[in-house]
Amino acid sequence: MNEAEMLRIISSTFSLGPDADLLVGIGDDAAVVAGTTRKRLYATDMAVEGSHFQRDWSELGEIGAKIVAANLADIYAMGGVPKYLLVAAGIPATFSADELQRLASGIQGEALLVGARIIGGDLTRSHELTLSITVIGEVESPVLRSTAKPGDEIVLSALTGYSALGYELLKRGIKDARSTHHRKPVVHYSEISELSHDDRSRFTSLIDTSDGLISEANHLSEASGAHLAIERDLLADMPGFSELDFLARNEHMDLWSLILHGGEDHRFLGTVRGEIPQGFFRIGTVREGVGVSVDGEIARHEGFDQFNA
Amino acid sequence: MNEAEMLRIISSTFSLGPDADLLVGIGDDAAVVAGTTRKRLYATDMAVEGSHFQRDWSELGEIGAKIVAANLADIYAMGGVPKYLLVAAGIPATFSADELQRLASGIQGEALLVGARIIGGDLTRSHELTLSITVIGEVESPVLRSTAKPGDEIVLSALTGYSALGYELLKRGIKDARSTHHRKPVVHYSEISELSHDDRSRFTSLIDTSDGLISEANHLSEASGAHLAIERDLLADMPGFSELDFLARNEHMDLWSLILHGGEDHRFLGTVRGEIPQGFFRIGTVREGVGVSVDGEIARHEGFDQFNA
Repeated sequence: MNEAEMLRIISSTFSLGPDADLLVGIGDDAAVVAGTTRKRLYATDMAVEGSHFQRDWSELGEIGAKIVAANLADIYAMGGVPKYLLVAAGIPATFSADELQRLASGIQGEALLVGARIIGGDLTRSHELTLSITVIGEVESPVLRSTAKPGDEIVLSALTGYSALGYELLKRGIKDARSTHHRKPVVHYSEISELSHDDRSRFTSLIDTSDGLISEANHLSEASGAHLAIERDLLADMPGFSELDFLARNEHMDLWSLILHGGEDHRFLGTVRGEIPQGFFRIGTVREGVGVSVDGEIARHEGFDQFNA
Repeated sequence: MNEAEMLRIISSTFSLGPDADLLVGIGDDAAVVAGTTRKRLYATDMAVEGSHFQRDWSELGEIGAKIVAANLADIYAMGGVPKYLLVAAGIPATFSADELQRLASGIQGEALLVGARIIGGDLTRSHELTLSITVIGEVESPVLRSTAKPGDEIVLSALTGYSALGYELLKRGIKDARSTHHRKPVVHYSEISELSHDDRSRFTSLIDTSDGLISEANHLSEASGAHLAIERDLLADMPGFSELDFLARNEHMDLWSLILHGGEDHRFLGTVRGEIPQGFFRIGTVREGVGVSVDGEIARHEGFDQFNA
């Protein structure tokens, strides 16, 4: 494949109908988007073969979709709506046109779930398949990490641990449906995007669980200067708990390690004042103090630190 | 270095004074920027060790600065002004805190030349040092590639070929001041940002010479559906020509190959209707037809295709 062939695949996969706000798309030095008085959100995520994914574990389409999902989750975790994506890819010399097509289709498919559009990018040569995606979103009132207050309830959109379960299975050489959530997490975009105005307005902080529940709870705790007291009983009441318990037991894995420290599920973890929003589950309470506890015991960060792994 | 140490280096290097439009910077899920009715520009560039730079040829600061420069040039090539940068970096395990500091300082230094600010990013583990930078700019009336018309004059901001000369020297094992322009191109930001309103309004198309003069002229030609007739005599009248001629001759390099096909100088190539803008030099004329010619002979693309190198 030469550069022209690669660009043909990319631009045909990423071309959609007109968008009144997109004044210039792929093909010039930069994309041009109309101005808006709404606040803009910007986030970026890079994933590298070997560190973030393995091509013998995941289909190329899953890899593309997973990195888009991580980016989209960042925008929803600010209370915003993703609009546009820029995709930079480092492509190995051995990559075929068909492989590039599958990667691009995975990216496009996940973006289409939320109506986001790929408006630009860069293709380059690398030894390891590398994807770096930037997402551009819009928001009226951003929900930060730093504004949780004692007395707020801690809420979670869905049980964590499924991606970690899949990862552990894949490490053991088991590649079946149980690893789906690691290969490509199902992010509940609609749970957060379809919140009513009232439900949305009660969030006092919000984050997505990229690095694991306790690790992200610690981010909220540190940014807000408050203590997050999480209760196992409340997590055990969430849908999917019995299934995850069964799967973990079956494979001799530690259930609570999966739930509390497993990363990459991209659930939404937040704090709310007042009634629990539709689609969310209460898992604890914000108190005066610092750090995160589980059933009263201080929970240490055990989120995956890729730089110390 | 663990992730926390890396983030400390990054956030201290990239922290600047307040910016009224930057509502949330580094540290949350996404950066938040105030809305504006001006059009937004978005471009992204990825560079990978071995393909785009070699650490034994270039200082880490130069590598960081060079990739920022490539991004900033894309915004200026749309007639815009860069405002913000997102920096995603794949960092090898052997990287020291000092090395990360030098890389970050190079990025910050180049961004400061134009007053652009790093507002977010991602750090990840990779085998090859990888940088992917996204730039966010603003523009009133974008200058596209597709709007050159027969009768326009072709203009260039500065002579091309210096980066290619440096690259050839480095390939021969010669690392002296003559390779400076390859290690870190000097982009003439002020020549384009300080154009008077009248000078700016006469541009009918604009691009930067990332991939070489002829290759980029072909991009203008294809997008605009016109023929670009370039003249060697006009290029030979540009400042720096005698110096480049001398350097090339001294090292038995083909001068015209450097000028016409050497990439990565990030000069500004455009077409104008009427008077030649301040700081630009006329190098030819737009005519009816297709393709690019040099002294009447059709010039083939010989831009560097990294996918066929």
